[in-house]
Amino acid sequence: MILSVRDLPQHVGEEATVRGWLYNLRSKGKIHFLQVRDGTGIVQGVVGKGDVPDPAFAACEGIPQESSVVVTGAVRADARAPGGVELHLRDVQVIQRSEPYPIALQSHGPDFLLRHRHLWLRSRKPWATLRVRHQVIRAIRDFFDSQGFTNVDAPIFTPAACEGTTTLFEVKYFDEGNAYLTQSGQLYIEAAAMSLGKVYCFGPVFRAERSKTRKHLTEFWMVEPEVAYATLPDIMDLAEGLIVAIAARVLENCREELKVLERDPAPLEKIRKPFPRLTHAEAVKRVNARGVAMAADDDFGAPQEEALVQGEERPVMVYRWPSAIKAFYMKRDPADPAVALGVDVIAPEGFGEVIGGGQREDDLAKLLERIEAEKLPKEAFEWYLDLRRYGTVPHGGFGLGLERTVQWMCGTEHIRETVPFPRMLYRICP
Amino acid sequence: MILSVRDLPQHVGEEATVRGWLYNLRSKGKIHFLQVRDGTGIVQGVVGKGDVPDPAFAACEGIPQESSVVVTGAVRADARAPGGVELHLRDVQVIQRSEPYPIALQSHGPDFLLRHRHLWLRSRKPWATLRVRHQVIRAIRDFFDSQGFTNVDAPIFTPAACEGTTTLFEVKYFDEGNAYLTQSGQLYIEAAAMSLGKVYCFGPVFRAERSKTRKHLTEFWMVEPEVAYATLPDIMDLAEGLIVAIAARVLENCREELKVLERDPAPLEKIRKPFPRLTHAEAVKRVNARGVAMAADDDFGAPQEEALVQGEERPVMVYRWPSAIKAFYMKRDPADPAVALGVDVIAPEGFGEVIGGGQREDDLAKLLERIEAEKLPKEAFEWYLDLRRYGTVPHGGFGLGLERTVQWMCGTEHIRETVPFPRMLYRICP
Repeated sequence: MILSVRDLPQHVGEEATVRGWLYNLRSKGKIHFLQVRDGTGIVQGVVGKGDVPDPAFAACEGIPQESSVVVTGAVRADARAPGGVELHLRDVQVIQRSEPYPIALQSHGPDFLLRHRHLWLRSRKPWATLRVRHQVIRAIRDFFDSQGFTNVDAPIFTPAACEGTTTLFEVKYFDEGNAYLTQSGQLYIEAAAMSLGKVYCFGPVFRAERSKTRKHLTEFWMVEPEVAYATLPDIMDLAEGLIVAIAARVLENCREELKVLERDPAPLEKIRKPFPRLTHAEAVKRVNARGVAMAADDDFGAPQEEALVQGEERPVMVYRWPSAIKAFYMKRDPADPAVALGVDVIAPEGFGEVIGGGQREDDLAKLLERIEAEKLPKEAFEWYLDLRRYGTVPHGGFGLGLERTVQWMCGTEHIRETVPFPRMLYRICP
Repeated sequence: MILSVRDLPQHVGEEATVRGWLYNLRSKGKIHFLQVRDGTGIVQGVVGKGDVPDPAFAACEGIPQESSVVVTGAVRADARAPGGVELHLRDVQVIQRSEPYPIALQSHGPDFLLRHRHLWLRSRKPWATLRVRHQVIRAIRDFFDSQGFTNVDAPIFTPAACEGTTTLFEVKYFDEGNAYLTQSGQLYIEAAAMSLGKVYCFGPVFRAERSKTRKHLTEFWMVEPEVAYATLPDIMDLAEGLIVAIAARVLENCREELKVLERDPAPLEKIRKPFPRLTHAEAVKRVNARGVAMAADDDFGAPQEEALVQGEERPVMVYRWPSAIKAFYMKRDPADPAVALGVDVIAPEGFGEVIGGGQREDDLAKLLERIEAEKLPKEAFEWYLDLRRYGTVPHGGFGLGLERTVQWMCGTEHIRETVPFPRMLYRICP
């Protein structure tokens, strides 16, 4: 029976065939120990001379790492083995003897590994990271789907900019002039929320930033929920609930992967409700009190974020922002227009901002004012203004960056490791 | 208690508040009948003069469609009402009296509706289509997730073309020259399958085709599974299983939506295993016998597809294709290199090809031969060739177009209706 490595512990005493790749080979006199990976895990196969026909035994001799192999044998319990089982082989087929594998089990520089990304993905840590990423994606979708949200895909080609034009990728679009690659689906799913009530988009977004930090990619995935009849406190509760659900899912399904990544699960276990909630003014006070300069209308930089979350085990929610530093579409507090009803969520452990959002301006006159004040092209926003002309309602939402979140869950130093084929300032290959 | 329209039938006899938009108003003497939609459905609220304070009753008078309203009242069973309930209102709040709504309940031309897409989404059919789309997405993800696949997102920016260069969108990418928007994640997830065994990508892909048919978009979503150690029959089984799962999910969760779309569910109920399987040669014979010309090495056009599925209630799988008309990466039958181990799935009812895929060439020498014969730039594929140098294994997969599938499930005439903001030759706004 063909089995996955992950399923072997349920088949002790039976015979199993595993199809995969040689991860490592040790040979001791008349015994070969083949570590075989199949995408679900690694199992050790033991084969002694005489257990298999002589040519099969000889074929194992000096076989290079990453050779494709199909092995068959008895599943035996072995407490010392990872996963608790070993295979005692009675057949070994070498599908292909690999050419000498360029990636050693030892370490290489980042540039070498990025050039060999298509192979590097097979290594333990990239493998574990992609599996965590998958669980984070599932957690996000299950969270929204189970609460009656409808997934509405926002377009990638957009005619205008959501947040400024300097960081846009431009595409020639037939006879229509230029299209721009989306930076956020928000404006579109605001329209969809007026049809479906609760919606989210979840797809790639793009930033043409000449930035080389360990927190930036030019192409990344973002999930953006949008809820009709929601106000700032609703949005804050939703953001909190989502993050708690993600951490719980990773802890439930990715213990082995976290071990491979040498990620201590303890900090993730502490991600529980309620998150501390500070107004921007309170946050500024705290940051300054901790010796880091921050003006009343400053956004957070890395040092400010660090000071803010110092000593915190849970993410910190900063809400009620200075209007001057928030986008035109964010709702101003009707009682105090200097305050914008936004919220950012800053992760602990130095992983920075993972969520930004808030309540949207639902008042046509005030939105028009903002568009004029910021000298935005009104015509481009006419359709968006229509949402305020025809049955406007309080509403809001946020964006959560998938890669930032995976980076946090995995405890990964550089964000490029959270995506299979990272796209950065100097990297579009392979 | 704030309730969704969809949940009202479970609360007969209780009081409920529904927050939404006025879909239609009828007034008969001293009674207003307000049809209110909230994104989950439509409910009729009945309010008589004296049931609510006089100003609230007066505010309902002549209130335009799409005004935002919050209504509160008793949930009463009413067999004649859609959903089986009505609300007997004791309070009506008009959040905003809408400006006169540009989209009447009667019909408009397609261009008008595309320009007003942000509002048109609120209408019954677009609403129903988006809900079906959501269920199709969920069915696809659940199908793969429950079988141990890992979701691996392929990059959108790619350095080279997967299938020809004439239909690519070009993006200036910093100092790296041009990047191209992906047409398929296949090559990338082949690499990922060698790490994780079973993978899929599911994201937007792009085709710069100057095409104006009812089956083409420039931007659409595609799901592409890829499986290590899989051969053509495995891939055909997987494709069949996926389509059956999608149809079953739509029937299970979208009965009301199909009704709104006037989509007869009977043809969907017939989508069961096994699908008819014809080799390309057999298919050509059938098409010709039905009076439509098709040469032995022709691909299917619309008339050929139609002849092929004539009288079929299930999708038809066409496999074993002429090598000459299939891509360089498709595996040639080692026993007959004139045959490529590919499979297309053609939907019944004229909805055309929904799946294309097959087994990939896993032999380095043969792949090199194809690349040379087709004069492809070998350097661009070096990383892809590496997958055959280091532990190559039989493997395969396919691509399923999300919008084509939604079009089929919904019985929609034009594919543009299956996506919230369609992108076509002459359309990038709003």
